Amino acid sequence: MDLILVTIDFVGTFVFAISGATVGVRHRLDLFGVLVLAFAAAVSGGIVRDVLIGATPPTALASWHYLAVSCLAGIITFYRCEDIEKLRNPVQMFDALGLALFAATGASKALAFGLQPASAILLGMLSGIGGGIVRDMLVAQTPVVLRSELYAVAALAGASVIVGGKVFELPDLPVLIAAVTICFGLRFMAIRFGWRLPVAPSRSD
Amino acid sequence: MDLILVTIDFVGTFVFAISGATVGVRHRLDLFGVLVLAFAAAVSGGIVRDVLIGATPPTALASWHYLAVSCLAGIITFYRCEDIEKLRNPVQMFDALGLALFAATGASKALAFGLQPASAILLGMLSGIGGGIVRDMLVAQTPVVLRSELYAVAALAGASVIVGGKVFELPDLPVLIAAVTICFGLRFMAIRFGWRLPVAPSRSD
Amino acid sequence: MDLILVTIDFVGTFVFAISGATVGVRHRLDLFGVLVLAFAAAVSGGIVRDVLIGATPPTALASWHYLAVSCLAGIITFYRCEDIEKLRNPVQMFDALGLALFAATGASKALAFGLQPASAILLGMLSGIGGGIVRDMLVAQTPVVLRSELYAVAALAGASVIVGGKVFELPDLPVLIAAVTICFGLRFMAIRFGWRLPVAPSRSD
Repeated sequence: MDLILVTIDFVGTFVFAISGATVGVRHRLDLFGVLVLAFAAAVSGGIVRDVLIGATPPTALASWHYLAVSCLAGIITFYRCEDIEKLRNPVQMFDALGLALFAATGASKALAFGLQPASAILLGMLSGIGGGIVRDMLVAQTPVVLRSELYAVAALAGASVIVGGKVFELPDLPVLIAAVTICFGLRFMAIRFGWRLPVAPSRSD
Repeated sequence: MDLILVTIDFVGTFVFAISGATVGVRHRLDLFGVLVLAFAAAVSGGIVRDVLIGATPPTALASWHYLAVSCLAGIITFYRCEDIEKLRNPVQMFDALGLALFAATGASKALAFGLQPASAILLGMLSGIGGGIVRDMLVAQTPVVLRSELYAVAALAGASVIVGGKVFELPDLPVLIAAVTICFGLRFMAIRFGWRLPVAPSRSD
Repeated sequence: MDLILVTIDFVGTFVFAISGATVGVRHRLDLFGVLVLAFAAAVSGGIVRDVLIGATPPTALASWHYLAVSCLAGIITFYRCEDIEKLRNPVQMFDALGLALFAATGASKALAFGLQPASAILLGMLSGIGGGIVRDMLVAQTPVVLRSELYAVAALAGASVIVGGKVFELPDLPVLIAAVTICFGLRFMAIRFGWRLPVAPSRSD
């Protein structure tokens, strides 16, 4: 179980770092700026969660593994950005997987630190979407995760499954698999079929 | 006294959430994005304050009430944004009230956690204006609270009265009423008469 | 040694506050907004570092000296912004000095709180560049420190020297001097000769 969680964590870190580095390259940042964006996108969600639950120093800073994985992803993206752009669909899939993994592990950690169910769901969602929010704020844009197809909603659904499983004392692994499947599935279907939430009617409508 | 403070807190949360949701609707975010902005505007000031004084997990996350109140305000704004826009003046008044309440309770909490008077004033002001700053940063704009009529100054004045009252050991309730009145009054007069602080002379002047 | 560190800290705070106030004046903020930006630029790096290592309340809030120094710098910049603009070169030099000082003291503090070497280097760098990042995000711009000549790299180098010195148990003062010299020197040479890191090749190249 622990090995699974660690592997999950590094896969999620890697794909989120790629998304950060891609944004950095598009905004013409230099190599170092690209690495900063890769690291920020990969770990900000977890760092914000850890600060909010009082688990300082945050795991993502206390261990150098996250930095190494992020820099690796950033350097690959920097020198192979054309190839990464061609892989847009696979990257979106990995990103959906990273979202599902981070939301699930984030909610688990919040529960382990004694937070209420509703708070743990919120923190799980924040673990999933926080990196994308910080990434976009660093390049002065409205975060894509607040606009795009069911992104935050999928994270919320995944985190809710984890918390529901804990409340009803279901076994850990099946709940984790269900949470990741639901979050990933929602996001996959939303990308595939362009599912969106409604936007408020504007005055000109 | 406690009942007063709790009521105050929820009224403040509700009106700040409306301000966040209104910004979200104007930026064409979907329903979920609007709820995120409502929640962020309502609780960010208090969360930042709690993290800075080491009171983790922050009250606004540990209890689900703030989330519920914010979502209610967000949903109402989403489906009734035309009506809310027509109510601009009442909303500005409630917003001024929320500012006064948050600045006062924020400064009290900082004092209760043992901070120095000057720091408690700063944190009170931050509790009041933090939500508006995060709200505007999420949609990539320079925070309105750094520009508009005596907004942060009013929060600073309210927080100073609370801290002054504690330093001179005056009774709590009259000091709270004085702080809220001064902050709200300053903001009301500033909106009513267009009071502004000076801007540095530009080269073209 | 302590007196040196305190002096260093206030000089760094003062020059960073000038950089924040200058950005505020350019964005036509009012006097209060300019002071907020001065304070944010001066202390955000240290506050973020303190929150991440669990040292709450952060030093920069717990003591009123930082606020006083920042406000002084902000007021001078507000009323003398033309003169400050003429002093662009000296200001850049002081800013490089502030960067070197903050990166060095930030890394030392992270080590003192028991963080791993790699984390301490990261936090040292963040102490140096965090103020500039928050300053630019507040006016909705991509942080200059992610773009400009070897800015973050210089901070990284300075923090690395401090951590290296601690790992090899070298005496404190010479290590501090070496760290500040290397960070300041790198930044000075980068400004002087326009050194930059590479940018990823764009599609149109």
